[in-house]
Amino acid sequence: MPELRKDPILGRWIIIAKERGKRPTDFIIDKSVTKGGFCPLCSGNEKTTPLEVLSYSDHSRSANAPGWSLRVVPNKYPALVIEGTLDKAGEGLYDKMNGIGAHEVIIETPKHEEFFAYLPQNRMVQVFNAFRDRLIDLALDSRFRYVMIFKNHGKAAGASLEHSHSQLVALPILPRMIVSELEGSLTYFKYKERCIFCDIIHQELRDNVRIVCENDAFLVITPFAPRSPFEMWVLPKQHSSAYISMDEEQFKLLAQIFSECLRRLDKCIPNAPYNFVLHTSPLRSQPLEHFHWHFEIVPKLTQIAGFEWGSGFYINPTPPEDAARYLRAAEL
Amino acid sequence: MPELRKDPILGRWIIIAKERGKRPTDFIIDKSVTKGGFCPLCSGNEKTTPLEVLSYSDHSRSANAPGWSLRVVPNKYPALVIEGTLDKAGEGLYDKMNGIGAHEVIIETPKHEEFFAYLPQNRMVQVFNAFRDRLIDLALDSRFRYVMIFKNHGKAAGASLEHSHSQLVALPILPRMIVSELEGSLTYFKYKERCIFCDIIHQELRDNVRIVCENDAFLVITPFAPRSPFEMWVLPKQHSSAYISMDEEQFKLLAQIFSECLRRLDKCIPNAPYNFVLHTSPLRSQPLEHFHWHFEIVPKLTQIAGFEWGSGFYINPTPPEDAARYLRAAEL
Repeated sequence: MPELRKDPILGRWIIIAKERGKRPTDFIIDKSVTKGGFCPLCSGNEKTTPLEVLSYSDHSRSANAPGWSLRVVPNKYPALVIEGTLDKAGEGLYDKMNGIGAHEVIIETPKHEEFFAYLPQNRMVQVFNAFRDRLIDLALDSRFRYVMIFKNHGKAAGASLEHSHSQLVALPILPRMIVSELEGSLTYFKYKERCIFCDIIHQELRDNVRIVCENDAFLVITPFAPRSPFEMWVLPKQHSSAYISMDEEQFKLLAQIFSECLRRLDKCIPNAPYNFVLHTSPLRSQPLEHFHWHFEIVPKLTQIAGFEWGSGFYINPTPPEDAARYLRAAEL
Repeated sequence: MPELRKDPILGRWIIIAKERGKRPTDFIIDKSVTKGGFCPLCSGNEKTTPLEVLSYSDHSRSANAPGWSLRVVPNKYPALVIEGTLDKAGEGLYDKMNGIGAHEVIIETPKHEEFFAYLPQNRMVQVFNAFRDRLIDLALDSRFRYVMIFKNHGKAAGASLEHSHSQLVALPILPRMIVSELEGSLTYFKYKERCIFCDIIHQELRDNVRIVCENDAFLVITPFAPRSPFEMWVLPKQHSSAYISMDEEQFKLLAQIFSECLRRLDKCIPNAPYNFVLHTSPLRSQPLEHFHWHFEIVPKLTQIAGFEWGSGFYINPTPPEDAARYLRAAEL
């Protein structure tokens, strides 16, 4: 079973995924993204993945058979496992617990060559619906406290399969990233009695120098202090702490704006590798006045990021005002 | 002038290095580490670097001429600049300041093909001496609060030049990494009245499952909750919060153990890319009972790290107990 371990100084939890156990020689060969050859995510290869936990299709079909437009399956090489009890334990001054959790793959399209940024609107809405459906379902399991939803696009961003997909990891702990955001935004709220994200939206709309695109419900900006060139945040204009509170109509507007900003990035830097991460309130949380759900899209363009992400110290050669200007100017 | 900007939610400072300004097309071509061709760090090419701020040589020589065994020069493309005043300013709810600081390159050898891990002991001692000399000198500038000292080895770890070198960045703020460590170790000290690093050393020596190597003054372990496969920490066994308190005799022992653990890594994973970062107390700090200086060596072996370092959520396929066993078993 995998193990969750806490760094005793920083309180940072990590997963030791023994089942993915790597010996030194496994690191020597640089593994490329699968191109051509067999793809387990393609339509017709349903039997090669674990059994699906969710699927969407326009007509009736048998489970784990072709005819779907979106499928969610457990990861074949999960970082965490669904069966078992948490069993927290100490080891001298160290803390650990069983690696209980869920690790699922959202297969966004049956077609190998269809990229996320270019999905038709109704199909991208399905992806956002699938995120919500899985969040609601996994919240029923009281062992889990947070679900990380993210996408790795391109080899430099960590994708091991070319076929368009995103992933979710249900965790029995709150990841450090979300703890820091909850604490930081609460500190601001206590001082100002306002949501810091709402204030950011207000200021960005007024300053109009870091806006990439917007519609009635969403704003996309390059953040004031971005870790990475061309980093973008997708924020709902109306205050909301929980992604699951969104409805179908709002997902249509989300799909429109998400697609637009990714296509703008693609025009500026063709096929740029990127990660996106959904930031939302913890599972079963009350609505929070101080926190505001959003997506962060982080292109992986600079090699030096390795050192910087490890040390918390970032150097970004591209001012976000310049990036926003390039992105706005891209012809779609 | 570069700019320091603070993320308003997380309090994370980043550097916008406009002078390194990148347009979208600059990101398209994958730049490789210079191999062959002209190297500005080689002996004989002293005139192509900015003027040296420190050098060691066995005999008298003119500055910026051959004959040195180690040189420190300002970075030709600095992320921060030395001249100017801090000028802190707000921009609505955002905070920023001028990008005042120092960015220097420690050229560890005059020879292009000599790698850090294989430097003779007396030459590696010079590198550790140079770190101390620069820390002491830069502490005289009251604008600076911290000096980050680090090495990028290999392209995947962010090295843009093959010639063995490390870097330092003097900062007018405390980087998030060091703030978190100071806070975390202080919390432990308040509870236990002991240094958490001293307790870790004590437990690791007793458990004897994560030790890579040791000598009279230093211990190298794979940490209990490592971000990366084969991550190693180099810790002084005697409590000390400040790297600059070390003397020549201690640096000899540090060079011996540092060289040994890097050569063990090189045997396990030939020419593994890695970063190391010195963690020490802030400039002009009193000796701290709760903090313990050390080096963290983080190999860059997994592509997925990009996402993980961005989100604070790490999956490590190699248990540190396994990594330590492989490293101990390597024949030197």
